Amino acid sequence: MPETFHFSAIATISSCFKEKFGIPRQPGLVKTATAELHLDKQFSEESVRSLQGFSHLWLSFVFHKNLQQGWQPMVRPPRLGGNTRVGVFASRSPFRPNPVGLSVVELLGIEERQSGIVLQLGSCDLLDKTPILDIKPYLPYIDALPEAKGGFASSKPQIKMQVEFTPLALRQCQQAEQRLGKALKKMIEEILQLDPRPSYQQGVVSERVYAMKLCDFDLRWQYCENRLIKVLSLVT
Amino acid sequence: MPETFHFSAIATISSCFKEKFGIPRQPGLVKTATAELHLDKQFSEESVRSLQGFSHLWLSFVFHKNLQQGWQPMVRPPRLGGNTRVGVFASRSPFRPNPVGLSVVELLGIEERQSGIVLQLGSCDLLDKTPILDIKPYLPYIDALPEAKGGFASSKPQIKMQVEFTPLALRQCQQAEQRLGKALKKMIEEILQLDPRPSYQQGVVSERVYAMKLCDFDLRWQYCENRLIKVLSLVT
Repeated sequence: MPETFHFSAIATISSCFKEKFGIPRQPGLVKTATAELHLDKQFSEESVRSLQGFSHLWLSFVFHKNLQQGWQPMVRPPRLGGNTRVGVFASRSPFRPNPVGLSVVELLGIEERQSGIVLQLGSCDLLDKTPILDIKPYLPYIDALPEAKGGFASSKPQIKMQVEFTPLALRQCQQAEQRLGKALKKMIEEILQLDPRPSYQQGVVSERVYAMKLCDFDLRWQYCENRLIKVLSLVT
Repeated sequence: MPETFHFSAIATISSCFKEKFGIPRQPGLVKTATAELHLDKQFSEESVRSLQGFSHLWLSFVFHKNLQQGWQPMVRPPRLGGNTRVGVFASRSPFRPNPVGLSVVELLGIEERQSGIVLQLGSCDLLDKTPILDIKPYLPYIDALPEAKGGFASSKPQIKMQVEFTPLALRQCQQAEQRLGKALKKMIEEILQLDPRPSYQQGVVSERVYAMKLCDFDLRWQYCENRLIKVLSLVT
């Protein structure tokens, strides 16, 4: 019987991604999708002393929405069109024997608030309320291996779609930008350009309206001819 | 109360490092310190299918010898001479709120043995019997950030010492190389060149004999004048 280890979250993520659908598949892909990391109250400023000297951090986290869903020895990575299967340990799939994730994120700032220490993070791929198990500094002399061979995922995912807003969606977007103080139009474009649909649906044009929860609204869009996405509305 | 998460080891490391003292502080520093990863028997070849396309892996592991030792909000990294304190989350210290480690290692090969799947790993910084929580492929397009700022640990640790073998140690080393089929002399040189002593002892010359358990022997050495290490013996 393998030994069991027990860990508690040291921090929680506050992010614009309120559900799994639509989250970029790696950090760094949607530059405007910044997030906050809220350290548990037991950790004072001391625990992050000198962290500001590092531009990037590793976050070890729990895929907390997958805890009940189990895993399979083989998965179908979106990068391979969703048809080819590879081993779960040859993928970054969130459905893993131990559902722990690893993300490198830019550190934009450190704040001491009454509620505790907050780290301002750059482009993230993390669901809101993700429990963080550990924060480590990114050490380029050891972690950066630009010559490494990246198997079936050697290059950045390509931008697949063009994004247009209907007049209604554009107005709602401007209202939401004012309300939330965030560059939402750019963020929505960056998210949808990557086409969040499962691979087997990609290329399909239909009347179907897709939706994802983002920040405090529901984003709705449709797929049109010529790889065009039409943003229909942002409804709170 | 933060939620608790339970994880079991998916694999175990078999390495030449039998105790903490002397282990290089990062992977990649001692090129000859290769290791094996033994997947738990529940995982078939399917779980690592297509992994051979990747040159490097991330290992998430448990610092299993530190489970009882607790942690402090601030630590003294060897890189700063052992006098300056930084936050535990600004360090890669093994004494962390959740004692999980992260190591990037080269993948040299995959073997299917009767006992299960074995991954041949390159230069490692892992203690023998380290429990592995997860294996992920290294994705250079997202993980390699050579321009990242590395704070107080921006460059590789420097080689500090020259290493010489006594005639006895040299003879015992040759015997051990035959017995174990490993390039031990080079490995011992690479380990000792980095000077495994705590920072506050570095630079001290004394009669004291230092020892570490390596492979199946005790390695003994002394510090002499002019940054010279004399390897005294390898005793099984």
